[in-house]
Amino acid sequence: MDIIVLKKSSTQDEIDNIQKRLETKGLSVNISKGTERTIIGVIGDTSKIPEEEVDSVRAMSGVDEVMRIVKPYKLASRDFKKENTVIDVEGLKIGGNKIHIIAGPCAIEGRDILLTIAQKVKESGASFVRGGAFKPRTSPYTFQGMGEEGLQILLEAKKLTGMPIVTELMDPRDLTLMLKYTDIIQIGTRNMQNFRLLLEVGMVDKPVLLKRGLSATIKEWLMAAEYIMSRGNHKVILCERGVRTFETITRNTLDLSAVPVLKQLTHLPIIVDPSHAVGRWDLVKPMSLAAVAAGADGLLIEVHTKPEEACSDGEQSLKPDVFDDLVKSLRLVATAVGREI
Amino acid sequence: MDIIVLKKSSTQDEIDNIQKRLETKGLSVNISKGTERTIIGVIGDTSKIPEEEVDSVRAMSGVDEVMRIVKPYKLASRDFKKENTVIDVEGLKIGGNKIHIIAGPCAIEGRDILLTIAQKVKESGASFVRGGAFKPRTSPYTFQGMGEEGLQILLEAKKLTGMPIVTELMDPRDLTLMLKYTDIIQIGTRNMQNFRLLLEVGMVDKPVLLKRGLSATIKEWLMAAEYIMSRGNHKVILCERGVRTFETITRNTLDLSAVPVLKQLTHLPIIVDPSHAVGRWDLVKPMSLAAVAAGADGLLIEVHTKPEEACSDGEQSLKPDVFDDLVKSLRLVATAVGREI
Amino acid sequence: MDIIVLKKSSTQDEIDNIQKRLETKGLSVNISKGTERTIIGVIGDTSKIPEEEVDSVRAMSGVDEVMRIVKPYKLASRDFKKENTVIDVEGLKIGGNKIHIIAGPCAIEGRDILLTIAQKVKESGASFVRGGAFKPRTSPYTFQGMGEEGLQILLEAKKLTGMPIVTELMDPRDLTLMLKYTDIIQIGTRNMQNFRLLLEVGMVDKPVLLKRGLSATIKEWLMAAEYIMSRGNHKVILCERGVRTFETITRNTLDLSAVPVLKQLTHLPIIVDPSHAVGRWDLVKPMSLAAVAAGADGLLIEVHTKPEEACSDGEQSLKPDVFDDLVKSLRLVATAVGREI
Amino acid sequence: MDIIVLKKSSTQDEIDNIQKRLETKGLSVNISKGTERTIIGVIGDTSKIPEEEVDSVRAMSGVDEVMRIVKPYKLASRDFKKENTVIDVEGLKIGGNKIHIIAGPCAIEGRDILLTIAQKVKESGASFVRGGAFKPRTSPYTFQGMGEEGLQILLEAKKLTGMPIVTELMDPRDLTLMLKYTDIIQIGTRNMQNFRLLLEVGMVDKPVLLKRGLSATIKEWLMAAEYIMSRGNHKVILCERGVRTFETITRNTLDLSAVPVLKQLTHLPIIVDPSHAVGRWDLVKPMSLAAVAAGADGLLIEVHTKPEEACSDGEQSLKPDVFDDLVKSLRLVATAVGREI
Repeated sequence: MDIIVLKKSSTQDEIDNIQKRLETKGLSVNISKGTERTIIGVIGDTSKIPEEEVDSVRAMSGVDEVMRIVKPYKLASRDFKKENTVIDVEGLKIGGNKIHIIAGPCAIEGRDILLTIAQKVKESGASFVRGGAFKPRTSPYTFQGMGEEGLQILLEAKKLTGMPIVTELMDPRDLTLMLKYTDIIQIGTRNMQNFRLLLEVGMVDKPVLLKRGLSATIKEWLMAAEYIMSRGNHKVILCERGVRTFETITRNTLDLSAVPVLKQLTHLPIIVDPSHAVGRWDLVKPMSLAAVAAGADGLLIEVHTKPEEACSDGEQSLKPDVFDDLVKSLRLVATAVGREI
Repeated sequence: MDIIVLKKSSTQDEIDNIQKRLETKGLSVNISKGTERTIIGVIGDTSKIPEEEVDSVRAMSGVDEVMRIVKPYKLASRDFKKENTVIDVEGLKIGGNKIHIIAGPCAIEGRDILLTIAQKVKESGASFVRGGAFKPRTSPYTFQGMGEEGLQILLEAKKLTGMPIVTELMDPRDLTLMLKYTDIIQIGTRNMQNFRLLLEVGMVDKPVLLKRGLSATIKEWLMAAEYIMSRGNHKVILCERGVRTFETITRNTLDLSAVPVLKQLTHLPIIVDPSHAVGRWDLVKPMSLAAVAAGADGLLIEVHTKPEEACSDGEQSLKPDVFDDLVKSLRLVATAVGREI
Repeated sequence: MDIIVLKKSSTQDEIDNIQKRLETKGLSVNISKGTERTIIGVIGDTSKIPEEEVDSVRAMSGVDEVMRIVKPYKLASRDFKKENTVIDVEGLKIGGNKIHIIAGPCAIEGRDILLTIAQKVKESGASFVRGGAFKPRTSPYTFQGMGEEGLQILLEAKKLTGMPIVTELMDPRDLTLMLKYTDIIQIGTRNMQNFRLLLEVGMVDKPVLLKRGLSATIKEWLMAAEYIMSRGNHKVILCERGVRTFETITRNTLDLSAVPVLKQLTHLPIIVDPSHAVGRWDLVKPMSLAAVAAGADGLLIEVHTKPEEACSDGEQSLKPDVFDDLVKSLRLVATAVGREI
Repeated sequence: MDIIVLKKSSTQDEIDNIQKRLETKGLSVNISKGTERTIIGVIGDTSKIPEEEVDSVRAMSGVDEVMRIVKPYKLASRDFKKENTVIDVEGLKIGGNKIHIIAGPCAIEGRDILLTIAQKVKESGASFVRGGAFKPRTSPYTFQGMGEEGLQILLEAKKLTGMPIVTELMDPRDLTLMLKYTDIIQIGTRNMQNFRLLLEVGMVDKPVLLKRGLSATIKEWLMAAEYIMSRGNHKVILCERGVRTFETITRNTLDLSAVPVLKQLTHLPIIVDPSHAVGRWDLVKPMSLAAVAAGADGLLIEVHTKPEEACSDGEQSLKPDVFDDLVKSLRLVATAVGREI
């Protein structure tokens, strides 16, 4: 049900027009005239009415404001599915009691270095390996990733360690290629509202890790998940990675309150990427511990053996021994909140 | 030239490592030891060093901060090209003394209505017709545009009125189709950092209207333009359409100071879209007048004969008579600032 | 009238409790049960219910959301007073057809320099002189202003040029002193929500220039004006001076759409301070022209004879000749929009 | 040491002028001419040069940019004091290994209710009682607090429970009164840059709890602490309470990364107020656990026996039993990170 607030100056004709328009959409109305304003309560399933069409009602003469009550997302909502969605990736269950750690370098830069990193994070307790083969870069003059060669290296790392792969898709034209290699398709921050890309991954049977947009609201983020789910793929994992604020000491501001908020609004699993949020390796540990304490189902952490030689994001990558120490501390906090790693 | 600020605790070995690394990149250094800190001035063309690699230097031991002085964009910069870029679209010159108005509905909804709108805005003084055939929608359940049928209608409107076409591209796979119809390719707000799409339009010979991202900085916006230009297409028109702020009465906040700032930083033409920025038709006039006073090279304005029946953004569309009145006022302000419409 | 949206799970008892609570406040209700939710329309003058108490209703069991329809400000609202408020300051009318320019240095630094600046801006067309005697500084180690000595210099400038004075009040304990000198009391950005200070200036008979808070919404700003007016002083002038955004090239982002929005919401005059918003003298002219085109009733502009020697904000101060040229251009735009300077 | 970047077009005369100006301030320079630009490294203690005066150097002809390297705050900096500041309040040590909880209602509304709340939170494990006697309200028509009568009730609660008092000061004129009752003076979010108030509490010997401004950066926040410390009072406790973002589901966004960042930059204790940050009682527990995991030295939590009858912020107050359960969980996480409660 939605609510339409009329202008003080609204006439009976205007009210009739609005009522007619709504009834043609199969909705009925409840009109209550207050001392100050007249309010029209719209009765029926208004979730079918898209945000954009609501603008048109707003544009009708006599209308002051339209307030939406029903959530614009359905499949992603807790109202649609009460129990948590648990996504099984080669036997690993994301969204259950166990907290999973996805670790690896930002970009795949070479075979040996990736295999070394993969083995080390596996030993420390990571359950997924990550690395970018196609990199979204702010500069066109930068290393844009190794492409398929990088995917082959990831696959080798998987065979070596048994860890499933998480890697980013930037272009619908790469999807078929991507499907041959990855176990989880990552949709990056800058593509959270690349609607064509969302529809594309919505049509395949492969889990999607959907990162939050740089200044997206939780509602916009869930609408992006809805895009994917609307095409049949319900295996969506949400990944909080910080939002843009005025703070400059950290690259972005990690919004950990998004974790408990999402646990209420949606049944989808939610993981946290502290590395990109803070942009500094020395802040990754406290924020990872906080993420687990806040209820995250997993973590995505950048690890690199030689951060100072990394093609990208070296500043925020942990060295293997620091990562190892982090996992030890994470186990203690996980236990304290009744979870395990 | 860039500047590297070292930690107070930095050692001579660390300084030597940094110097070596820079020299391998063909750069030389100027080391100045202050009472508090040691600073390394990097001498040579550091513009070749991409943002992301700078992170790696930041990650080197001994480094506290790296400050960039050279702009990361080159082709888009005034330093690269002193005189204004004037883009000729079928004889209409964007970026010259004449201010051009691009007008039309948000989405193409039908033949008759588009042709009517096109004729009316033409009579009032618009020089380009716009309308979306492929619509980026926040909900997957919304009208997504008429597709090629919409493009055909636009073409008919062009033949009828002589006005060149501006319409949005969302997916690299639609480019070939798009090229058969449009005169200016619009890249929308949500795709400002869809780098694959930017590279794609960078390889065709067709002007690109690049909208500012929803919370993009001017620097990020110019880097997006650089992406397009780096592939050879230098015909980029920047379009300010408001940034996200905490204000809720207007949909976004139109950043008019971006106009004079861009006039200093870049040689590219800059136009303003007040309709999407404010999201309310009754604010479009004052903001259009202000945009022209601030130095905009053009305006992008939504016009609809029946806003209350529009499939999208009805709330912000002007009726033809209001648009006609607006253009009259715009001519007066344009004259006051030495421009013409 | 306000609206209370109940949880799907709400019980009849909960509905009865809410109804009882509202009735004890002299309000009646309209309950409409939709297919999805039950909505309670609150009938009566809910403007008496403060924001904070609404939180308590939100906390009642069964309540999902409370939506406010009535504006929380009354005296500042157009609904309360239809016609524009015109404030007469020694014969100069702020809020009428004439646009007034308030000019001067950021801080008063000495007698001779202030008198020189005052005479020059007067010759160019300014009608008020401004300068800070008490300066809000981000660092405690900075020049904090000349205090009463500065006010005496301002008074001398007024006697010399006939221009009334605008200067800032930071502390309720300075009010009595301030009243002996100034014609308009300025409340700075950082004190927009210094409620004790607002109440204090609300009890005197002197116009107040209320600057917008650094990241304040228009509604919060009008509530600050309401604070002043609630104590009897209705002579409030609103001053837009830019809001904080992610853009770093300009100090803040001037929100010119606030001008037409405020013209709808309130009867109070609204002026614009481009100098502090952009923080760079070379952007002051285009933004001043835009402000006038957008409908501003006045401008507050920093002028300094030797910007590079200014104790503060030198970077954004215009030299007298640049200011003189600016006023000439302003007259043209003012005429174009039917105003005069 | 600071760095001055000159314009490409800068002349030798301009360079000489800048050098002269700096030398008159007792600073020396290191000039390095790069292939693109000339850079002036300023040698000497530039921390004495306030932000505002730097603007003047920026305004000098030939200057393109000035970059500050030294932190503008000194007394608050880790460079000034290596070891953590531990503040002793009646034997309770804030900033040590023990995490302290400050609990109570937002506003003091009556004797019985406050005493009840105080006793209950004490039993659960709180060590300080809080409650507002002077309330900063967004509306002038709202309950503004009980004033001294409220302070007397707080004192009674202290005598009853032995818990020291934390309450807010809004006006320098209330300080003397306040000193008779409170053990910690709270400076609220809206007064973080009320510089006169900061200087005032800087001159008394009483700990100050300084809340972060609504959209303040960490640097601005530390400068506010510096204001207090510059007058001699070094007993400052920083309180993170969320910053403004575009998210609307939570009142503000709790910036937990501020905790580890501040642990690096300053020696002052840092506590977290999750109640005001999220604005919803059901999110207080996960965010409190996360705050402790992130390294907070304490928590400020709102507790009310009848949230739905609270004069303010009922929505975000925990009932005593929920608070009791929270403290139990907090002890587990505290232990996991090597702290105690």
